[in-house]
Amino acid sequence: MSEKPLILVTNDDGITAPGVRTLIDVMKTIGDVVVVAPDSPQSGMGHAITINSTLHLDKVSNNNIEEYSCSGTPADCVKLGIRQILKRRPDLCVSGINHGSNSSINVIYSGTMSAAIEAGIEGIPAIGFSLCDYNWSANFDHCKSYVKAIAENVLKHGLDHGTVLNVNFPNLEKRDIKGVKICRQAKANWEEEFDKRQNPYGKDYYWLTGKFVNLDQGEDTDEWALANGYVSLVPIQFDLTAHHSIQNLNTWDFNEK
Amino acid sequence: MSEKPLILVTNDDGITAPGVRTLIDVMKTIGDVVVVAPDSPQSGMGHAITINSTLHLDKVSNNNIEEYSCSGTPADCVKLGIRQILKRRPDLCVSGINHGSNSSINVIYSGTMSAAIEAGIEGIPAIGFSLCDYNWSANFDHCKSYVKAIAENVLKHGLDHGTVLNVNFPNLEKRDIKGVKICRQAKANWEEEFDKRQNPYGKDYYWLTGKFVNLDQGEDTDEWALANGYVSLVPIQFDLTAHHSIQNLNTWDFNEK
Repeated sequence: MSEKPLILVTNDDGITAPGVRTLIDVMKTIGDVVVVAPDSPQSGMGHAITINSTLHLDKVSNNNIEEYSCSGTPADCVKLGIRQILKRRPDLCVSGINHGSNSSINVIYSGTMSAAIEAGIEGIPAIGFSLCDYNWSANFDHCKSYVKAIAENVLKHGLDHGTVLNVNFPNLEKRDIKGVKICRQAKANWEEEFDKRQNPYGKDYYWLTGKFVNLDQGEDTDEWALANGYVSLVPIQFDLTAHHSIQNLNTWDFNEK
Repeated sequence: MSEKPLILVTNDDGITAPGVRTLIDVMKTIGDVVVVAPDSPQSGMGHAITINSTLHLDKVSNNNIEEYSCSGTPADCVKLGIRQILKRRPDLCVSGINHGSNSSINVIYSGTMSAAIEAGIEGIPAIGFSLCDYNWSANFDHCKSYVKAIAENVLKHGLDHGTVLNVNFPNLEKRDIKGVKICRQAKANWEEEFDKRQNPYGKDYYWLTGKFVNLDQGEDTDEWALANGYVSLVPIQFDLTAHHSIQNLNTWDFNEK
């Protein structure tokens, strides 16, 4: 049996995306790689899972790496990878590199991060990587050494129970990146605007658009780090309990009036 | 202008589900109700949003309540409700009553809770309600007085910034319910099993199945509350930062070797 770590790779932009190809190239230098990724883009899928329809897997061959194309969501890919494909539990699950930012509140909508969180729920150390550039032809070269260093740190140190990592790269040349900064999630959000149009038959429809608004000026946030030339690294948890609210809620009266 | 609170109602089982009809009936006794709900079931959609295709809204008439059927996800419904349909910000957003539990880790996969969280991100007090009974013909009668009491408390007291409520009802007769218990999310998870089958043309496909495993014996969890005859109420946050991990991660070395 191999001594190398077993690494499950997935993403949400689909198995042919340049970002996941970069991630595979880096992971090959660290361990044995198996890829289970969506057969089509799944951006904005959040933590969706497929429970009302069937899932398909197709083995695809690519430079001697074991790869599977899956009809499901990123979270489905991780579940299928762990339960159906891998012969043992992976030592690491990595997701990305996403074409586009998953900093701040975007973590909630992110298929990339949902894959990492799904692995984390299973107790597998996991990292989601994203580049702040939505272009399909984005340049991922400056991400590689950091992806490798962060993955090696996770394999060496492990992660705290119930946490995964959310890593975002600024869209800069490598020489302009100042290093990795451990951050908290900025308290930012989207101000949606719906672009209302009419189809050729006179019926209204909408496109979801909007602008990202960050009113959080903290210098310990992921948004600050990215705007100031750092790779942002946020530890994320999936126990969503707001423990600080429990005491106050215990004072409420729920008896019928 | 009406003095009554404006309440946005949504769900993830679709606008025709008995659970949302119950929720509408209760909310009508508290305020002015507008419904924006998916036109088809969206269970397991997590926090998915529709960014790669168009959204449709159809006004439907139902007992003098303003209702809209939406082609999108529960999170889309909330975004459209707030930005496109409502003439002012709602005082409350309620989602459900879901046919099936959203306790413990299920909050992550839940379309019901994603709708509440989406409203919470917008700064609107929000509650997701779920009944631990997946049947379409489930009996929601015992939920009504608690739904009303919890919603009235939220309207009266507000919620801590950055939090929403996740309420689950045990599948019991009303006389057997002991009251509302403020809880934390139990540390439980799903052990998936994929049911592998062959289609008529010889190609493999999979159904996601599994069993829920709760190893968390704490008597302060939602699972304990539900198993012991209480309505569980968990405050949920959408800042996912694992603040307790930051100090440790700052000791890592990310320099190239």
